[in-house]
Amino acid sequence: MQKGEIYMRMVDIINKKKNANELTNAEISFAVNNYVWDRIPDYQMSALLMAIYFQGMSSEETANLTMAMVNSGDVLDLSSIKGIKVDKHSTGGVGDKISLVVVPLVAAVGVPVAKMSGRGLGHTGGTIDKLEAIPNYKTELSKNEFIHNVNTYKMAIVGQTANLVPADKKLYALRDVTATIDSIPLIASSIMSKKIASGADAIVLDVKVGSGAFMKSFAKAKDLAQTMVEIGQSLQRKTIAIITNMDQPLGQEIGNANEVKEAIAILRNQGTKDETEIALTVAAYMAVLGGAFSDFNLAYKALEDLLISGAAINKFAQLIEIQGGDKSVIDDLTLLPNAKFSIEVLAEKSGIIQKLNAEEIGIAAMLLGAGRKTKADNIDYGAGVSLVKKVGDVVKEGEALCVLHTNKEEFLTALDTAKNAFLIGKDEVELSPYILARIT
Amino acid sequence: MQKGEIYMRMVDIINKKKNANELTNAEISFAVNNYVWDRIPDYQMSALLMAIYFQGMSSEETANLTMAMVNSGDVLDLSSIKGIKVDKHSTGGVGDKISLVVVPLVAAVGVPVAKMSGRGLGHTGGTIDKLEAIPNYKTELSKNEFIHNVNTYKMAIVGQTANLVPADKKLYALRDVTATIDSIPLIASSIMSKKIASGADAIVLDVKVGSGAFMKSFAKAKDLAQTMVEIGQSLQRKTIAIITNMDQPLGQEIGNANEVKEAIAILRNQGTKDETEIALTVAAYMAVLGGAFSDFNLAYKALEDLLISGAAINKFAQLIEIQGGDKSVIDDLTLLPNAKFSIEVLAEKSGIIQKLNAEEIGIAAMLLGAGRKTKADNIDYGAGVSLVKKVGDVVKEGEALCVLHTNKEEFLTALDTAKNAFLIGKDEVELSPYILARIT
Repeated sequence: MQKGEIYMRMVDIINKKKNANELTNAEISFAVNNYVWDRIPDYQMSALLMAIYFQGMSSEETANLTMAMVNSGDVLDLSSIKGIKVDKHSTGGVGDKISLVVVPLVAAVGVPVAKMSGRGLGHTGGTIDKLEAIPNYKTELSKNEFIHNVNTYKMAIVGQTANLVPADKKLYALRDVTATIDSIPLIASSIMSKKIASGADAIVLDVKVGSGAFMKSFAKAKDLAQTMVEIGQSLQRKTIAIITNMDQPLGQEIGNANEVKEAIAILRNQGTKDETEIALTVAAYMAVLGGAFSDFNLAYKALEDLLISGAAINKFAQLIEIQGGDKSVIDDLTLLPNAKFSIEVLAEKSGIIQKLNAEEIGIAAMLLGAGRKTKADNIDYGAGVSLVKKVGDVVKEGEALCVLHTNKEEFLTALDTAKNAFLIGKDEVELSPYILARIT
Repeated sequence: MQKGEIYMRMVDIINKKKNANELTNAEISFAVNNYVWDRIPDYQMSALLMAIYFQGMSSEETANLTMAMVNSGDVLDLSSIKGIKVDKHSTGGVGDKISLVVVPLVAAVGVPVAKMSGRGLGHTGGTIDKLEAIPNYKTELSKNEFIHNVNTYKMAIVGQTANLVPADKKLYALRDVTATIDSIPLIASSIMSKKIASGADAIVLDVKVGSGAFMKSFAKAKDLAQTMVEIGQSLQRKTIAIITNMDQPLGQEIGNANEVKEAIAILRNQGTKDETEIALTVAAYMAVLGGAFSDFNLAYKALEDLLISGAAINKFAQLIEIQGGDKSVIDDLTLLPNAKFSIEVLAEKSGIIQKLNAEEIGIAAMLLGAGRKTKADNIDYGAGVSLVKKVGDVVKEGEALCVLHTNKEEFLTALDTAKNAFLIGKDEVELSPYILARIT
């Protein structure tokens, strides 16, 4: 316990924030540390979280909160890895397999990416779950293997270590049951603390906005993006954020094996326009922050060339190989897990797709087995949804809108949910841009 | 559990209030009942309390919260008592012995007062502690004795039963450590729930404002008073509030036996102007609400006559007698507990008392033994402070400002505190009125 701590009282800290006063670094550290050490009870922390929800936090408070969370657990020491370690984070959306694409792309230009990813709780698995759809891919490496791979091959994607930002785990669980999830400084410090504890020197953030994202409004997404960029800058991590559209799912594939297949397509330059553009943008910023290029446009062009030349897909094959996986899946997609049933969801009328609700497609994927409702649930890697039509596409009555993949015999609820996700009308639809803003 | 309750989730209720939506009666009852039954954890309730602090509650929500709290425990059935049962409540201040005066006064005009009072945690004891300074006064009566006394003599003052509004006990303890005490709807429902559970048909509220009161600003005191009057009215209890000044202590005596002595003086029409006016005002409103008078001014005059005629002090003697106490204390104040030491606090310069900080006098009284810091502390009934000078009084260097009464040999901190409570200056002081507003 630091000098003076015994004189601090949590109730005074709550009261101070409640009255819109700025908390000192000592007060924030006191609250976070003693909470993690079980010396401050949940009921005081939840009151503080609600007060933060209403009163917000200054840039300095948010940065201090982030560092207090970082210091609550293990901090990865990646100093033995040469170069500027870059990382990326997406706030999450339906069909988001961008991490699988950008890690080999950025590594291919020599910038080290030492990535720790999470498992998913929701529509589909997280990046780690998706990689586990690849036969024998090891998502756990020893620290030495991890550092060796990043030094030698410039890339690794592993699961988060157990003691990474324990404060975030405890706080998130509390926020979840006390309606204090949707606070910008709390979301921002949660995300940034994990990136910093994982050893990132530079960070590119993909903040999703729309019906399928946590942030429903552009204003809130921008606020979150700016807050995270400010945290990064004040903690000497170069940070850039882009805000991307998540009104409909990304690409065509939602699921785990499904999304690996689509990532392979993107890396072969056969991906959809939306995902290719977002992946290249994220990768180009990472490459610039990592010092490989002086300029975003140069980086973008060079990375695009890697998709065309085959260097990108080869680097992904190497990633699979150095983590023990079967790289032949790249040339034989049937080696990836499949589902017993494929069910076409048919259009009940002709017209143009006006809207495609990403969240409902996500729920359908979860119902089919692609995601977890609780930590204990198992993921069915072969389950998911393949979109045939997207917003703006013309469809005729009886044509397939999407295809469901599942091993479950009860799929009617998922089928209804997926069907309801499509709104068919008569109007021409103007597509909004994939990337809505860049905060650098 | 009521039908439908299993479908309610506390997190949704917190979120609804957080987003400034009005909670239904069912939601409020669900939260309060399940909290009292230990089915909702403290950390969710504290988050809801903080959300209520920020978003407030409508009149209907506040009334529903009050009734949910009332119904969390025993509700006194006073239907066997004839007449309109009136009660009063003070939000608390230093030197407030008004309850001891108004109960016999109102009973003397035939209006039944079935009063349950609390013990104090703070500067001095509560009404029950003060009464226990009277030798043999019983603050616990059986329900039959209680009802018999009120039916026969129109009065009783006893301690609160253990299971009166358990929701308030649990919520108050939580609010105390989560910085959610100072929320108008929470304070108002806490007070009103106890009055209603004690069986009151009509209620007169004395809301204190000033340096020695919980409410420091007139605006907040008025807000609290109005909220409580609205609760009373919407729950069919006639309710009137007055807002009274608590910048300096009430009267001259602070302590327990001390305050009994001063109550006796008031009832003999030998009290200070401030206390006499406030006591007569509260009692007159009670008498009007109880149906004894059609008009406040008539009631005030009639009650004043009782002070002059001796009927009031005789009624107090009867109160002591019917609760087993020694009524001879009225004519022989030396029968009340005394303190070993009397220490005069002397003025260090001549001038006019500009300010007399009620809170500091209260703290001095507590340090001398008159109050409790924790529930486990014992009260010294003889300890307290007698004020010699009050705001506006002229004082000469070396004259006594007040006298400390204590059995403790270490009284220097109390002496300094009491001395610092007096601000002596040169300006003439205009006294503010004792009663600042009436909300009827």
